[in-house]
Amino acid sequence: MPLDDLQARLRTGLPDDALITDTDVMASYAHDMASFCAAGTPAAVVLPRTVEQVQHVMRTATELRVPVVPQGARTGLSGAANATDGCIVVSLTKMDRILDISPVDRIAVVEPGVINAVLSRAVAEQGLYYPPDPSSWEMCTIGGNIGTASGGLCCVKYGVTAEYVLGLDVVLADGRLLRTGRRTAKGVAGYDLTRLFVGSEGSLGIVVQAVLALKPTPPVQLALAAEFPSASAACEAVCAIMERGYAPSLLELMDRTTLRAVNAMAHMGLPETTEALLLAAFDTPDPAADLAALGAVCTEFGATEVVPADDAAESELLLKARRLSLTALEAVKTATMIDDVCVPRSQLAAMIDGTAAIAEKYDLVIGVCAHAGDGNTHPVVCFDAADPDESRRARESFDEIMALGLELGGTITGEHGVGILKKDWLARELGPVGMELQRSVKAAFDPLGLLNPGKLF
Amino acid sequence: MPLDDLQARLRTGLPDDALITDTDVMASYAHDMASFCAAGTPAAVVLPRTVEQVQHVMRTATELRVPVVPQGARTGLSGAANATDGCIVVSLTKMDRILDISPVDRIAVVEPGVINAVLSRAVAEQGLYYPPDPSSWEMCTIGGNIGTASGGLCCVKYGVTAEYVLGLDVVLADGRLLRTGRRTAKGVAGYDLTRLFVGSEGSLGIVVQAVLALKPTPPVQLALAAEFPSASAACEAVCAIMERGYAPSLLELMDRTTLRAVNAMAHMGLPETTEALLLAAFDTPDPAADLAALGAVCTEFGATEVVPADDAAESELLLKARRLSLTALEAVKTATMIDDVCVPRSQLAAMIDGTAAIAEKYDLVIGVCAHAGDGNTHPVVCFDAADPDESRRARESFDEIMALGLELGGTITGEHGVGILKKDWLARELGPVGMELQRSVKAAFDPLGLLNPGKLF
Ligand SMILES: Cc1cc2nc3c(=O)[nH]c(=O)nc-3n(C[C@H](O)[C@H](O)[C@H](O)COP(=O)(O)OP(=O)(O)OC[C@H]3O[C@@H](n4cnc5c(N)ncnc54)[C@H](O)[C@@H]3O)c2cc1C
Ligand SMILES: Cc1cc2nc3c(=O)[nH]c(=O)nc-3n(C[C@H](O)[C@H](O)[C@H](O)COP(=O)(O)OP(=O)(O)OC[C@H]3O[C@@H](n4cnc5c(N)ncnc54)[C@H](O)[C@@H]3O)c2cc1C
Repeated sequence: MPLDDLQARLRTGLPDDALITDTDVMASYAHDMASFCAAGTPAAVVLPRTVEQVQHVMRTATELRVPVVPQGARTGLSGAANATDGCIVVSLTKMDRILDISPVDRIAVVEPGVINAVLSRAVAEQGLYYPPDPSSWEMCTIGGNIGTASGGLCCVKYGVTAEYVLGLDVVLADGRLLRTGRRTAKGVAGYDLTRLFVGSEGSLGIVVQAVLALKPTPPVQLALAAEFPSASAACEAVCAIMERGYAPSLLELMDRTTLRAVNAMAHMGLPETTEALLLAAFDTPDPAADLAALGAVCTEFGATEVVPADDAAESELLLKARRLSLTALEAVKTATMIDDVCVPRSQLAAMIDGTAAIAEKYDLVIGVCAHAGDGNTHPVVCFDAADPDESRRARESFDEIMALGLELGGTITGEHGVGILKKDWLARELGPVGMELQRSVKAAFDPLGLLNPGKLF
Repeated sequence: MPLDDLQARLRTGLPDDALITDTDVMASYAHDMASFCAAGTPAAVVLPRTVEQVQHVMRTATELRVPVVPQGARTGLSGAANATDGCIVVSLTKMDRILDISPVDRIAVVEPGVINAVLSRAVAEQGLYYPPDPSSWEMCTIGGNIGTASGGLCCVKYGVTAEYVLGLDVVLADGRLLRTGRRTAKGVAGYDLTRLFVGSEGSLGIVVQAVLALKPTPPVQLALAAEFPSASAACEAVCAIMERGYAPSLLELMDRTTLRAVNAMAHMGLPETTEALLLAAFDTPDPAADLAALGAVCTEFGATEVVPADDAAESELLLKARRLSLTALEAVKTATMIDDVCVPRSQLAAMIDGTAAIAEKYDLVIGVCAHAGDGNTHPVVCFDAADPDESRRARESFDEIMALGLELGGTITGEHGVGILKKDWLARELGPVGMELQRSVKAAFDPLGLLNPGKLF
C-alpha cells in the first residue's frame, strides 16, 4: 500500500488538522515511556475529534489491511502504545470532553482523552471522587487508564480502574460501534465485554466513550511515615495491618535508594538512613486516631520512628514524594526498567528481599517502591543505556524479578500491563491453555489482527 | 447416541455414587426456580467430587457431542440451570470444600458447591467478610453466584459478586483445565477472562475452584425503617441520600403488597397501611448518628414515620423481612415471575410508578421490592398458573416491565441473569453488534456449543 494512497484515503473522512503526515512530528508519536521496547515508524498519525472520525479510520484500516495503534498520553511503561512500522497511530488526546457528571447516579460520562487529574478535579467540585490515581495522573488519559487497567496509590482501599468502568463505547476493528455495559449501578445482561476491554491494551477496539462510577468524596486523608530498620520488618507490619482489619486509604513503601533519589531531585528532606519508609493514610472520620493505632502496629514490628503528618498539607507532601519516586529513580542513571510484580501480600517480604539479592547478583542499583498494601512492587532497575554490559544485566535482572514474582505465586504485572516488554512473560504466567484462549478472544474481536499488533502476545 | 452408551462411558471415570440415572431422581434436577421456562429431560446427572471427574464428563461430552448443563443449588430465577433434553446435568453441590482462608491476603479459596452462607460464617470466624449476600444465601452456591454474578442487599456499599472473584479454575468444554486470574490483590496480565466467566451462566466453562476477595468484618450494622406516603417520595429520598454522599450498607424498598405478603407468611408486624417502606442501614463506626441523619433526609422527603432499630437484633428482623420478600410474594398466588430491571437511580421513581401502571393495565398483583440504592427493582408478578388468561397477562406485563426499564436507560437484569426467560430481551438490550460479539466469545470458548445451550441467546 503506497503511503500517499493511505494518507489520501484517510483524508477523505478527516478535517485537515486531524491528520499528521509530517515525518518528524510523526516520530514524536512513536513510543511511550518504556525502555527496551522496539518502536516503528507510523504511516500516519490521526487525532480524531469525533466517533465518526475514529470509525472512518478503522474502516479505512480494515479495507487496506493497515495496522492501527491507539494512543493516549503515551505515559505507558510497557511499550503498549508504541507504533509499528507502517501503522496508523490514533491518538485520542483531542477527544477530551467530560460529557456528564451525575451526583445522583454517581457516574461520569467522558471521552477517552480526558486527563485523569482533570476528571478528578471536575468531579471533586460536585462532591464526588474518581479514585484511580496512577502517579502519572496529571498526564495520563482515561482511555490509557482503561487500556492498561491502571492502579495507583488509593487501590489498597478503592481498587483499580477496572472497578470503575461501567460502560464503554468502542469502535471495533472493522469500524462498527459497540455499546457495552451500562449507566446503572448493577447489570448482568450477557458476557461482561466491558471488563474485557479494560486492560486489553488497545488490541480489541478503540474506546471512544466511557461511563465511570464515582464515589462520594471521602474526608481528606491524613498520612504518617514510619521508618524501619529493614524492608522485611516493614512488610511484616504491612501484613499485620491488613490482617488486623485496618482499611488504610494508602499503604506505600519506599526503600532507601528511592528516598535518596527523591531527595536528590526535589530536596524533600526524606530520611536517608532508614532502610524502608512506610507511608500510610486514612480518609476515615477520625484519621488521627486510626493513624495512632496503625503507628502502634508499626512500632510493634520494629519501626524506629513513626511520624504522623500534622495536617493535610504535610500529608500531601508525603504523597508527592511517593508520586515522584519513578521520575526520581529515572534520574539516577540514563535509563530505567520498571518491574511491576504483584505478589500475595504474605509474600511481600520475600519479594523485596529477593529483589535486593538480584540487585547484588547483577551489581545494579535497583530502587524499590511498592503499593505495599496490595503486594504490588515496582523494582526500578537503573542503568546506563550507553553501557552494553550494564544494559544486558539490567534486562536480565528485570526478567529475574518477574521469575521470582511468579515463583511466589504472583503476577508479572499488577498495573502497568504487558505491552511489548513482558510478552514472553505473559505466556509463562498464563500457560498454553490460557494463551490459546487469549488468542481466541483476540480473534473474535479482531479477526484480521489489525489492532495494536505485536502487543500482549 | 443411545442413553446406555452415554451412561456407560460416564461410568468409566466416575465413582458409583457420582452418577444418577434413575429417571425420577433425574427429574428433580430438571429446573431452577423460574416460572415459564422450558425444562428438558436429562440423560444423566453427575455429582462430581473432583476436578478430574468434571474433566472426564466434559471430555466424554465433547467426544459424544452431548450438551452439558452445570448446576449449583438451582435457586436461579431465569431458567439458566434448566436441563435440556438428553443433556448431562453436572451438579457441583458435592464439591463443597473451603480450601483456604487467609486473613493476611484477605482471600478465600473454595470449591464451587460451597453454600454462600457457609462461606460467610466461616470467614466471619476469622474476622473476615464475604459481602455478596443474595437473599437466597442459605441455599445458593458460590458457583451459582459466579454463574449469575449475584447481587444482594449489601451491594449498594460493597458491590456484586463480580467484584470479589479474583481467580478461577475452569474446566473447558473439551475437558482442558484453565487457570485464570490470580491470588493477588491486583493483576492485569492479559485479557480479564476471569470476569468473563462471572455471569456467563455456565455457558463458557465449569467453575471448579474460585479465589475470592474478602474484606475485614465491618461493625455490626444498624437499620431503620421509614414509611412513605408514595413510592415516588421514597425514591426521591433515595436519590437525595445518594446525592448527599451517604454510604449506607443497605438501602431497600418494599411496597405495600410486599409488606402484606411478608406479614401473611411470617407475622412480622410490618406496617401495612404505608405505600412504601424504605429500609436503610449503616455499618459505620457510629451507625446511630448516621441513621439519624439519614432519617432526617427521609422526613424531609415526606416520610410519615421513621423508626430506627434499637439494636442489632431488631435490625436483623428488618433484614429478614426483606430477605423473605420473594418467598412471601410467591405465596400470594400459585406462581410468580420476578423482574430484575435495574435503572439509573435517578429513574427509580419513574420505574416504580410505571410498574404500578402496568399492574393496573393488566389487572394483576405486582409486588415490588427493590435494592433501591442501586436502582435495581424486583417487580414480582403474581398469578394463577392454572388460569391461562392470567398467565398470558402475567407474561405480557413481565415483558412490558423490561421494555420500560430499557426506555429509562436501564438493563433487563441487574443480578438474576438472562437464562431462558429473558433471551429475547438480551438481544433487544444489546443490539445486533453486541449480540454478534457475545456469540463470537461463546464460540471462542465452546466451538461445539455444548455448554448450557439455549441459555442467554
Ligand atoms: C511517572 C509515571 C508514573 C506512573 N505511575 C503509575 C501508577 O502509579 N499506576 C499505574 O497503573 N501506572 C502508572 N504509570 C503508567 C501509565 O501512566 C499508565 O499505564 C497510564 O494508564 C497510561 O495512560 P496513557 O494515557 O499515557 O496511555 P498510553 O500509554 O498512551 O496507552 C496505554 C495503552 O492503552 C491503549 N489505549 C490508550 N488509549 C486508548 C483508547 N482510547 N482505546 C483503546 N486503547 C487505548 C494503548 O494502545 C496502550 O496499549 C506511570 C507512568 C509514569 C511515566
Ligand atoms: C428466595 C430467593 C431469593 C433470591 N435472592 C437473590 C438476590 O437477592 N440476589 C440475586 O442476585 N439472586 C437472588 N436469587 C437468585 C439465585 O439465588 C441466584 O441467582 C444464585 O446465585 C443462584 O445460585 P445457585 O447455586 O442456586 O445456582 P443455579 O441456579 O444452580 O445456577 C445458576 C447459573 O449458574 C450456572 N452455574 C452454577 N454452578 C456453576 C459452576 N460451578 N460453573 C459454571 N456455571 C455454574 C448454572 O448453569 C446457571 O446458569 C434468589 C433466589 C431465590 C429463590
